[in-house]
Amino acid sequence: MDGFAVRAEVTFGAGPDRPVSLKVGRDAWSINTGRPMPSGTDAVIMIENVHFLDDENFEIEQALVPWENVRRVGEDFVASEMILPGHHPISAYELGALIAGGVFSVKVVEKPRVLLVPTGSELVSGEALGEREPLKSEVLEYNTIMLKGLVEEAGGIGIRTPIVPDDYEAVKAAIVKGVRSDAHLVVINAGSSAGSEDYTAAAIKDLGEVLVHGVAMMPGKPTILGIVDEKPVMGNPGYPVSSVFSFETFGLPVLEAMQGIPRHSRPAISAVTARKVPSKLGREEFFRVKLGRVGERVVAAPLPRGAGSITTLTRADGVFRIPARSEGIDQAAPVQVELLRHPARIDRTVVVIGSHDLTLDLLADELVPHNIFLSSSHVGSLGGLLALKSHSAHFATSHLLDLETGVYNWSYIRKYIPEIPVKVFHGVMREQGFIVPKGNPKAVKSFEDLLRSDITFINRQAGAGTRVLLDYHLDLRGLDPANIRGYQMEEYTHTSVAVAVLSGVADVGMGVLAASRALGLDFIPVATEQYDLVIPEEFLGDEKIVTLLDIMRGEAFRKRVLSLGGYGVDRTGEEISPPDTEMV
Amino acid sequence: MDGFAVRAEVTFGAGPDRPVSLKVGRDAWSINTGRPMPSGTDAVIMIENVHFLDDENFEIEQALVPWENVRRVGEDFVASEMILPGHHPISAYELGALIAGGVFSVKVVEKPRVLLVPTGSELVSGEALGEREPLKSEVLEYNTIMLKGLVEEAGGIGIRTPIVPDDYEAVKAAIVKGVRSDAHLVVINAGSSAGSEDYTAAAIKDLGEVLVHGVAMMPGKPTILGIVDEKPVMGNPGYPVSSVFSFETFGLPVLEAMQGIPRHSRPAISAVTARKVPSKLGREEFFRVKLGRVGERVVAAPLPRGAGSITTLTRADGVFRIPARSEGIDQAAPVQVELLRHPARIDRTVVVIGSHDLTLDLLADELVPHNIFLSSSHVGSLGGLLALKSHSAHFATSHLLDLETGVYNWSYIRKYIPEIPVKVFHGVMREQGFIVPKGNPKAVKSFEDLLRSDITFINRQAGAGTRVLLDYHLDLRGLDPANIRGYQMEEYTHTSVAVAVLSGVADVGMGVLAASRALGLDFIPVATEQYDLVIPEEFLGDEKIVTLLDIMRGEAFRKRVLSLGGYGVDRTGEEISPPDTEMV
Repeated sequence: MDGFAVRAEVTFGAGPDRPVSLKVGRDAWSINTGRPMPSGTDAVIMIENVHFLDDENFEIEQALVPWENVRRVGEDFVASEMILPGHHPISAYELGALIAGGVFSVKVVEKPRVLLVPTGSELVSGEALGEREPLKSEVLEYNTIMLKGLVEEAGGIGIRTPIVPDDYEAVKAAIVKGVRSDAHLVVINAGSSAGSEDYTAAAIKDLGEVLVHGVAMMPGKPTILGIVDEKPVMGNPGYPVSSVFSFETFGLPVLEAMQGIPRHSRPAISAVTARKVPSKLGREEFFRVKLGRVGERVVAAPLPRGAGSITTLTRADGVFRIPARSEGIDQAAPVQVELLRHPARIDRTVVVIGSHDLTLDLLADELVPHNIFLSSSHVGSLGGLLALKSHSAHFATSHLLDLETGVYNWSYIRKYIPEIPVKVFHGVMREQGFIVPKGNPKAVKSFEDLLRSDITFINRQAGAGTRVLLDYHLDLRGLDPANIRGYQMEEYTHTSVAVAVLSGVADVGMGVLAASRALGLDFIPVATEQYDLVIPEEFLGDEKIVTLLDIMRGEAFRKRVLSLGGYGVDRTGEEISPPDTEMV
Repeated sequence: MDGFAVRAEVTFGAGPDRPVSLKVGRDAWSINTGRPMPSGTDAVIMIENVHFLDDENFEIEQALVPWENVRRVGEDFVASEMILPGHHPISAYELGALIAGGVFSVKVVEKPRVLLVPTGSELVSGEALGEREPLKSEVLEYNTIMLKGLVEEAGGIGIRTPIVPDDYEAVKAAIVKGVRSDAHLVVINAGSSAGSEDYTAAAIKDLGEVLVHGVAMMPGKPTILGIVDEKPVMGNPGYPVSSVFSFETFGLPVLEAMQGIPRHSRPAISAVTARKVPSKLGREEFFRVKLGRVGERVVAAPLPRGAGSITTLTRADGVFRIPARSEGIDQAAPVQVELLRHPARIDRTVVVIGSHDLTLDLLADELVPHNIFLSSSHVGSLGGLLALKSHSAHFATSHLLDLETGVYNWSYIRKYIPEIPVKVFHGVMREQGFIVPKGNPKAVKSFEDLLRSDITFINRQAGAGTRVLLDYHLDLRGLDPANIRGYQMEEYTHTSVAVAVLSGVADVGMGVLAASRALGLDFIPVATEQYDLVIPEEFLGDEKIVTLLDIMRGEAFRKRVLSLGGYGVDRTGEEISPPDTEMV
């Protein structure tokens, strides 16, 4: 401590009523933290307990015991005591402990090297591409870039090789070269399935032993584990999400074992599912989910399961599994979710379930600087209201038109969730219309055209506000949906409808202008509609909801919405009273 | 999917009883995953559903719907959709998503640069030291090495400057140079208190503004937050643990804010304290703890609180706080512990409470490769047995001699924890004796010598087996402890006793040979005693305990124990029956 070093004896008897006077240089010597004690002294009077009488003399009102306020040699650790056990990761703290203990070099575990071999004749590497755009026949290779990232996050060194074409001898040569290199693990990315150009398994079998080909999990089913020249060789599926799951499930534990790192599963949390989740019997299926706490429960909203959907990895907060023997689980069923992010994020997430709109993306982006995250599940307007009934969301998004009154949402709220006190806030006005290919080649102009035999329609799912709007207009005109080819083909978002039109699955679908514009498609306006937020009163005081409404009412957000096209924001963020109140 | 691309129509009507035959090149074209569909086709028959009739013809037994097994353009995301929101950290997944989306460059946040200025005339840097040993007057500087590690773990760049002497003008010049550099934050490490050579606060005040000097927390009380030339300048305490806590509490949030990283507190867990924890009124006190799950509860065993004890950081699994208004908490009190490690580690930790022995360190080291961690709290033998009573430990270590029967431990077990069914396993035999300075300058030879007026003794705490042994021998000889100077000075471990002797606090203490030898002290043997493990029957089947006993019975462990000196391992790991059973 900072103060004066003394022999404790000279302080004995000191008290508030009977101060003891000491003389600097005779009884006490100035000392600072970290300095050795003057010989003959055994205690330190803290500077704040010293009352100076003059330059040389001071009083104290408290006695010291020997060695009070003195840090002894070896307070921390002493020769031959263990500073760190073996296999202890070295971070900032450990650097300090080692240096403090006079240890300036330690033996460490070698970083495992992983050779990452991309295969596929259709692939082109970013390096080879340089500045030019990829051709239509070329697919940009990025699986090994992700794998390299995963290897490095796990403490290894990832080495990407040039792309190997789909040629049996070339794949075999790459494996031979790999196992003869100084790599500790060789990963052949893609060609692990049973297609006519999938050579990995045969090549490994030819050179060594295939231990496993195919695992009962999804994504990641076509995984190969083999041994060639006593080195582990792994064959990875080509779909990006499958490749990642396969490597995380089977490659990372190998890297951890090589480094002597204990295998820790990810931290898990109990949650309930935001919707029913069907699953295939006979495989363990992994679902990526968004997580948010709604009241007391954590709600897990499954993201699309496509093995090509790399954004489901970047958007996911966690992963849960449905075991091979299950055909799926119900809405609000309990699940254990392995966390991909800091658990604190769950409490900073607003869960919205309901109708999809592109402005939700903008809202999510605007919320990040406020340390608020948006988890949005697209199940249609009615699905959103029902999610409020099951307390699975902080708010629902809805654009359900009452066909009799022309008022949006309120009649549905009263019918479906009368027991949940809610308030409705206006989101945006938006144009709905027909999304058709550029140039409108089939000249779709009216609802009547949807019944033409040369036209395939792509619909939205039952309960979607857009479908209600379609049905309303069909009914108005006396048109029978049964005569629309594709009426039973359902998509869950505006964007998916636009994609179906772009890829030729359908000639026309119904959706918002922004979705059409995003894909360079044409748009025939049909109606303007009201897209609102339905918020249970219990969440109105939640600071996250308050911030969200503030953002919606702000200029920055409105400008970004307007730039999408097809939106009106005049009343965005305003509370919308129920119709009877308005009539009073 | 891998297989054959077809028009779905050609498969209509196919079923197990009425296979449809297709011809390659006319109806169907071979295709592999990831390749574009041949024009005119809209579905893929999976290769495993194809039954070849000959080289050109095959049958299928299942119809396809249009677009079955076809991945559409934009399945993942489409132009103008948001790939990542702002301020999203970029890891392996994000690299994949960006490249898949054709985004090859992104704007990122600049890494904040932190200038770390070590001050202190007694300090020497490892760089300056080179190969030579530090002098007695030199203290090796490592606080800024730890701070640099913390800065880098938080995404910043840490820049260590040369050491600045304790000189007002030099400190001031260092601050001026720091704020004029391109650093975003300047940290002056040490000199933040109120000692006669603590210049940081005055120098900041001279140059700019001191916002905060001194915070009501411990460790970390003498923290300074200031602004000079619009740059944040921080004054950090010099004790290593204080320096770390101060920077983590006040510096890291600044780095996170600069990077737009949301401030997440560490994940927390509910636990109960392994022992009573006193705390000082008026400051929030941080306690580093070891954690382990004992039955249903997580037990938090506080580590020594010394601000110089850097190993308490490397050993800690978590941290809990006692608020400023509290004087401490009881044993088994509920606390919220912020986790410093993966929560799964808690379930892999064996909690031992009781008598200290150096062999526990070796046991901890041997357990790591089995992914088992040892949390040991040293409260003496009796404290260990009482910890079993409160279900706070997986086992206790004890060497309590029954003065009447000469049998170790069993009579204490029957007296203090009759309701806990336990088994006793032999640990080690060990030599107890007097620990004295090298050369035994005061010629201590017998228990009688402890009463000499020129001798200061250092004792173990009440309930320690070593103290029981001492009292036994004093009683045997009719010696009155009241006549031993220092009998009331208590330490909690053998090593602490040895340190007290080494540093001159005491002339003699009682302890094991290994502790004496570790510090190069002399040792006068007094007795051989039995140090055992007391394990509740409920934990005998626990795989961690099974492994621990296996290790104790193994050759490797015994060899390491013998190399410490003063130990016998002939019966190590053997079960010791209660005395009455032996008599039958």
